[in-house]
Amino acid sequence: MSDLRERLVAAVGAAHVLDGTDDAARDLAHDEALAVGHGTPAHVVRPGSTAEVAAIVTAARETHTPLVARGAGTGLSGGANAPDGAVVVAFDRMTAIRTIDTTDHVAVVEPGVSLEQLDAAAREHGLTYPVRPGEQSASLGGTVATNAGGMHAVRYGVTRTHVVGLEAVLADGSVVRTGGRLAKISAGYDVTQLLTGSEGTLALVTEVTVRLQPHLPVRRTVLAPFRDLATTTAAVARVVGSGLAPALCEYLDDPTMNAICTAADLTLGIPDDVRAAADAYLLVELVGRREDRVEEDLTELGTLLTQRGAVDVYALPDGSARRLVAAREQTFWTIKARGADEIVDVVVPRSALAEFLARARAAGERHGSRVLGCGHLGDGNAHLAVFQPDDEALHATLHEVLAAGTALGGAVSGEHGVGRAKAGALAELGDPGALAVMRRIRAALDPDGLLNPGAGPP
Amino acid sequence: MSDLRERLVAAVGAAHVLDGTDDAARDLAHDEALAVGHGTPAHVVRPGSTAEVAAIVTAARETHTPLVARGAGTGLSGGANAPDGAVVVAFDRMTAIRTIDTTDHVAVVEPGVSLEQLDAAAREHGLTYPVRPGEQSASLGGTVATNAGGMHAVRYGVTRTHVVGLEAVLADGSVVRTGGRLAKISAGYDVTQLLTGSEGTLALVTEVTVRLQPHLPVRRTVLAPFRDLATTTAAVARVVGSGLAPALCEYLDDPTMNAICTAADLTLGIPDDVRAAADAYLLVELVGRREDRVEEDLTELGTLLTQRGAVDVYALPDGSARRLVAAREQTFWTIKARGADEIVDVVVPRSALAEFLARARAAGERHGSRVLGCGHLGDGNAHLAVFQPDDEALHATLHEVLAAGTALGGAVSGEHGVGRAKAGALAELGDPGALAVMRRIRAALDPDGLLNPGAGPP
Ligand SMILES: Cc1cc2nc3c(=O)[nH]c(=O)nc-3n(C[C@H](O)[C@H](O)[C@H](O)COP(=O)(O)OP(=O)(O)OC[C@H]3O[C@@H](n4cnc5c(N)ncnc54)[C@H](O)[C@@H]3O)c2cc1C
Ligand SMILES: Cc1cc2nc3c(=O)[nH]c(=O)nc-3n(C[C@H](O)[C@H](O)[C@H](O)COP(=O)(O)OP(=O)(O)OC[C@H]3O[C@@H](n4cnc5c(N)ncnc54)[C@H](O)[C@@H]3O)c2cc1C
Repeated sequence: MSDLRERLVAAVGAAHVLDGTDDAARDLAHDEALAVGHGTPAHVVRPGSTAEVAAIVTAARETHTPLVARGAGTGLSGGANAPDGAVVVAFDRMTAIRTIDTTDHVAVVEPGVSLEQLDAAAREHGLTYPVRPGEQSASLGGTVATNAGGMHAVRYGVTRTHVVGLEAVLADGSVVRTGGRLAKISAGYDVTQLLTGSEGTLALVTEVTVRLQPHLPVRRTVLAPFRDLATTTAAVARVVGSGLAPALCEYLDDPTMNAICTAADLTLGIPDDVRAAADAYLLVELVGRREDRVEEDLTELGTLLTQRGAVDVYALPDGSARRLVAAREQTFWTIKARGADEIVDVVVPRSALAEFLARARAAGERHGSRVLGCGHLGDGNAHLAVFQPDDEALHATLHEVLAAGTALGGAVSGEHGVGRAKAGALAELGDPGALAVMRRIRAALDPDGLLNPGAGPP
Repeated sequence: MSDLRERLVAAVGAAHVLDGTDDAARDLAHDEALAVGHGTPAHVVRPGSTAEVAAIVTAARETHTPLVARGAGTGLSGGANAPDGAVVVAFDRMTAIRTIDTTDHVAVVEPGVSLEQLDAAAREHGLTYPVRPGEQSASLGGTVATNAGGMHAVRYGVTRTHVVGLEAVLADGSVVRTGGRLAKISAGYDVTQLLTGSEGTLALVTEVTVRLQPHLPVRRTVLAPFRDLATTTAAVARVVGSGLAPALCEYLDDPTMNAICTAADLTLGIPDDVRAAADAYLLVELVGRREDRVEEDLTELGTLLTQRGAVDVYALPDGSARRLVAAREQTFWTIKARGADEIVDVVVPRSALAEFLARARAAGERHGSRVLGCGHLGDGNAHLAVFQPDDEALHATLHEVLAAGTALGGAVSGEHGVGRAKAGALAELGDPGALAVMRRIRAALDPDGLLNPGAGPP
């Protein structure tokens, strides 16, 4: 162990090697997952360059020490939770924005750069990085590793859609460069896409190249209560199919709507009779280059939603819209504050979302758990909070909810990743053939099993 | 060998096993690549189902026979060129469109379905499959295998962007199902994306699930001559950055413009002095839901191009626009008829395209080869024709052109794939680390090397 420490100090300098029992190290040994434990790492190291990352990996390999990458620690699946004795590689010193290129429309950044920093830098050039999970402090390395989604995915796609090039250190300490500042590529297997979403189990990402999009300055938001989620889903299919290209398409159930409005001290002025009739709220944002067109589109959207069964349609004033979207982004903190015991982000075909939620609620009822939530309706991605203090009943509920999702053609995670929270569920519920492929790939690239053991695919 | 034939007959029925020396089989033993040879396969088999594909793979494995998948044979890299003694698996009987789903906005199809058939089926529901390589007879299986691009990629992305689920048979005969009718997924490695672009070297694709897009009915096209390609590229960066979201952004050099207009018997009425001044033609198409907006945007586009150095800007009447785009799609046949000896589809960062073309021309001059072409300027993807009857000089030219592309941060193929034509170049010019990863993956999934040996990554 002291040999390990010496090697790590040689790699990154003593100032950047923390002992695992340090207070500072303790904070860096886990993410925000609610129901996943973590151990005490041997060390937390903070490399400043790719060469230092490679030296860390070599030191770990030679001492048979597991490695856990850590970005901003905002993950929700325990992917950054360190087992006892592991080395945590924290990327918070690698925060350079190397390039914002206005001809290629790409950014090249170090993995510790946050979404907020990147987007701000892009905005200076009239561009944007539109990947927007609820937490803008998330790092580029972490969002690449989990293939983060978020509200804008319905229009812009998820992280995967934007990642065009990577530099990464493999388990053998070698450095690979994949893709580039390229709009597309068809030159061998897409290693960029393989590493995206691999949660630190195949490589440590040391540089990220992502596509940027033109920033569209005009945004208008509507809120539409619906009697039930099946009607809401059908309406959303028409909105997406219309070509209106909404920038977000969220649903919230009534308790979640109440909870986030209370938490944000937000009054939307919806009449009581409408509230009483509503089982689901649909939040849609339109964006565009020009005020007049977005206004026109908003009218069209309102008509479409009314025809498709909305109880009412409210065009939100800019201030309320921003606050409501922000409150929606804070849902995790809100339900955590209210004592949620675990969250679920099952994705299903959009057409199956209402059925999935019915089954999830029924599963909750069977086990005396409360199941409520919201989600990225445009993507068929539910974010459910499960309230159940009893551990056994909690796990029984979770198991039935995840199984209901996969039975409907879905997957255990739409965007949070497998991490440690869903590794068992994936192994049980995933396609056996696809799991076998994952296993072979993992063994081929990390034969000693040192990269994030216990997280990700089996 | 007769044992192999018996097994294949048992798998698919005698009517669907051709002897490799049959005339019909000969036609199925290669694609459209210009400069890649092919052998005589032992047999061509035409499975009708996934189970039959699995039985073929098992028969091949047990007899150590290489397998080459074949879609429509429109590939341009020799990926479907059969080595002597191989079994060609032709997917032309698997042409069912299983689903066009108007809630999930996906299609589920068998691999032999053509782009034309899929798009026609989607159109009946107001949707479209926007992947449009020049050749609409290409199959879904083939386009997934090469990660085909085409003109619309600048707006809609390439095949990869659209593939959300696959069923495929691995080299061991097992069937895997990946992804699904899902807008996104973050549940383990993205095997869907790994198989997309793998050119039949990791698995045979037996079912494809792709995203569909709303069909936008209005389209307007402009043609703008420019004095040089660097100015054109800079202008295109502004067009893309503006949010006008063009549906195509092509450039053509003067000889290619002349050639396709002649071949299509098309007169565009561009004055001689403009032609004399023009070194590159830019073709941009705008699409939208509404006539009035697209007209307005067209005016904005015209102004922008003029400000950015266009010699002139012509809004093309609908008929001419359609014919010019069709003629552009036929470029391959045109330059083939004129005796082109090989083509190149190097992709580079958009900002490097002009420099790449200058270097490519210089390489041509050094070896007495003629190098001309057109390309997907929005994507930084050049389609060059090389005229050089002497084999040695041809290969020297090609090598320098591909090396120039990779030296500028590009790759040997933007969309046609590696196939057999560029396997050597990729092995030489690709990132050694990324190539090592590809090699390990290929060995892990096809340890006996039976899937398309000689094609794709090393
Ligand atoms: C309030 C809140 C709301 C959220 N909303 C959403 C949402 O809507 N959509 C969504 O997708 N997510 C959401 N998240 C989850 C979270 O923001 C994402 O998972 C994000 O991608 C994590 O980034 P991070 O930098 O914090 O990564 P971490 O939590 O530090 O790590 C996440 C995973 O990535 C790995 N990793 C980190 N850096 C690297 C690297 N450089 N190389 C290799 N592996 C690495 C880790 O090992 C771990 O497995 C939310 C989180 C919070 C707290
Ligand atoms: C006139 C013309 C213009 C073109 N323009 C473009 C263009 O602009 N952009 C572009 O990207 N391409 C273009 N192409 C190339 C071609 O259309 C694409 O490469 C297409 O993807 C090939 O599809 P296919 O069905 O013909 O495949 P094939 O040629 O039959 O095979 C292509 C590759 O895919 C593999 N394969 C086929 N089916 C399967 C399967 N089911 N499972 C696994 N592997 C399989 C084969 O082994 C081979 O490696 C053009 C071709 C022509 C003739």
